[in-house]
Amino acid sequence: MKLASLKTNQEGQSSRDGYLVVVDRSLRFQVDVSHIAENMQQALDSWANVAPVLQAIYVSLNQGRVQNAQPFDVTQCLSPLPRAYHWADASAYVNHVELVRKARGAAMPESFWHDPLMYQGGSDTFLTPNQDICMPTTDWGIDFEAELAVITDDVPFGVSAQNAQQHIKLLMLVNDVSLRNLIPAELAKGFGFYQSKPSSSFSPVAVTPDELASNWRDGKAHLPMRCYLNDELFGQPNAGIDMTFNFYQLVAHAAKTRALAAGTIIGSGTVSNCDRALGSCCIAEQRMLEILEFGQAKTSFLQFGDTVKIEMQDEQGATIFGAIQQKVTRRAES
Amino acid sequence: MKLASLKTNQEGQSSRDGYLVVVDRSLRFQVDVSHIAENMQQALDSWANVAPVLQAIYVSLNQGRVQNAQPFDVTQCLSPLPRAYHWADASAYVNHVELVRKARGAAMPESFWHDPLMYQGGSDTFLTPNQDICMPTTDWGIDFEAELAVITDDVPFGVSAQNAQQHIKLLMLVNDVSLRNLIPAELAKGFGFYQSKPSSSFSPVAVTPDELASNWRDGKAHLPMRCYLNDELFGQPNAGIDMTFNFYQLVAHAAKTRALAAGTIIGSGTVSNCDRALGSCCIAEQRMLEILEFGQAKTSFLQFGDTVKIEMQDEQGATIFGAIQQKVTRRAES
Repeated sequence: MKLASLKTNQEGQSSRDGYLVVVDRSLRFQVDVSHIAENMQQALDSWANVAPVLQAIYVSLNQGRVQNAQPFDVTQCLSPLPRAYHWADASAYVNHVELVRKARGAAMPESFWHDPLMYQGGSDTFLTPNQDICMPTTDWGIDFEAELAVITDDVPFGVSAQNAQQHIKLLMLVNDVSLRNLIPAELAKGFGFYQSKPSSSFSPVAVTPDELASNWRDGKAHLPMRCYLNDELFGQPNAGIDMTFNFYQLVAHAAKTRALAAGTIIGSGTVSNCDRALGSCCIAEQRMLEILEFGQAKTSFLQFGDTVKIEMQDEQGATIFGAIQQKVTRRAES
Repeated sequence: MKLASLKTNQEGQSSRDGYLVVVDRSLRFQVDVSHIAENMQQALDSWANVAPVLQAIYVSLNQGRVQNAQPFDVTQCLSPLPRAYHWADASAYVNHVELVRKARGAAMPESFWHDPLMYQGGSDTFLTPNQDICMPTTDWGIDFEAELAVITDDVPFGVSAQNAQQHIKLLMLVNDVSLRNLIPAELAKGFGFYQSKPSSSFSPVAVTPDELASNWRDGKAHLPMRCYLNDELFGQPNAGIDMTFNFYQLVAHAAKTRALAAGTIIGSGTVSNCDRALGSCCIAEQRMLEILEFGQAKTSFLQFGDTVKIEMQDEQGATIFGAIQQKVTRRAES
């Protein structure tokens, strides 16, 4: 099943939480389901009851049997969860962390291979999948990070990784926008990321794990994460390879000392493969590789006018989530 | 104006977001206002329109002119925002940070006096003001932290401290529950707090700043923050004294690289005065003082059965927010 949140409903009204639609597998048609759940959060709050009803509509939509289907337009989408109560992002591709450390000559603690890194990001003002990354300056070192994320229902306090599996209800892509030049000073303060992680964006569509068929296994999505910078392929590492902690483990990590509420989003961190020929899912990693090879970075962080595209396709080349497509623009001084 | 969120409405229905009531100044009476805004988040989403209507009801309630007023019972309250889209907590009483560093023999960077510390906390599963702090073990070093917090409406990207002032709509008390023994290893990983900060609790009632009259000035609440451990006064530092960054500055810090959505909660961090005779707002600070004085800590972190109470009173001794009152209990192994 594929779901999206539209900016406006059929009467042209807008809502901070968007209006829920079921989208067909090919992302060509949508059908309004706001009479079942007005928005994505409401659906997640009552997932066990709501999901079967939505799934039945999805089956009919794919069969062309829904009378009031409308064309689906990704530019009319908000983030699947336009605002969320919990957005925790991991750094599960530990080879990426090791590389970053290596480039600055620092050893990585061995514990990083066993204990996930996770921080909490701002979830009150997500960007839409096509919204500009609008910043007052490029001096902050604007970067993209292509990631996969899961959305959970209610997760009990202290859930095991094994039991976490059943709480993963939806998958999406993420662009975890980062301000690289703000990170060193912020992390040095010891409280983690805050200003260095502005609003993230997510794919137009969130999908149930079964949409990935056998490519969703062991809590990982075994498909390439394709990123394009100014329409050129920048990286296509496989999200199922070199993921040190799978999503079951990440959800269990998040729930170690408290319950997680329905609508919790857990991100994978930047996808990264040890096979560097596949490119990178963020500019920072590319720069680290350049530093190790040439002694200095050649690729600059994002400039005004640059575009980023993030997408995941199935083996037939069909888009699964729709694409995140964003442009970097200059914010006028207020 | 004083507002609270009830667990159930008059028909006995429950909701994850609670049911909004206006509470009178003395916290004796409430009136259902869910026909105006079903819950606190809805009120904040449309604050400019909703607040004047609620304020008029508040005035009538205080005058005893509301026909359908009901007795107010703090045990029926959820957190004023039972779940929130953004909960960022600062550490604005820098003398407290300096003390913690001093006790472990570390110098504090001079920049900490100019650049606020802030981390993002879990906001999807807030505890109620009277809910047990239920943990599987006391080995984690369970501590309370008594703080003040503000709730904002929509705050523009890059707002100045001066302009942030107008976006502070409500105040509440916080118990930022901390797991002290998990903090060192977690902060050493460099990504900040996550597992070491389980669900927080807030006061039964959120109030508009004018409820503090002249004690709300310069973005600070100039009243004692009273904490009780097992019914004995543990500390009563003045929240308006030694607060290095006021709430206007904290909101501006939070909004430096992105907008903040309505319902954002920004906390002060543990209240702490340089005058140590006033006691502490968390056990960790008391332990640091003992280490500096006696070479070792004497006060233990919270044990099963311990109770914590956090309250702020006006000069006449009347409670402003109602009290956070919680007991520490043992969570059964699942």
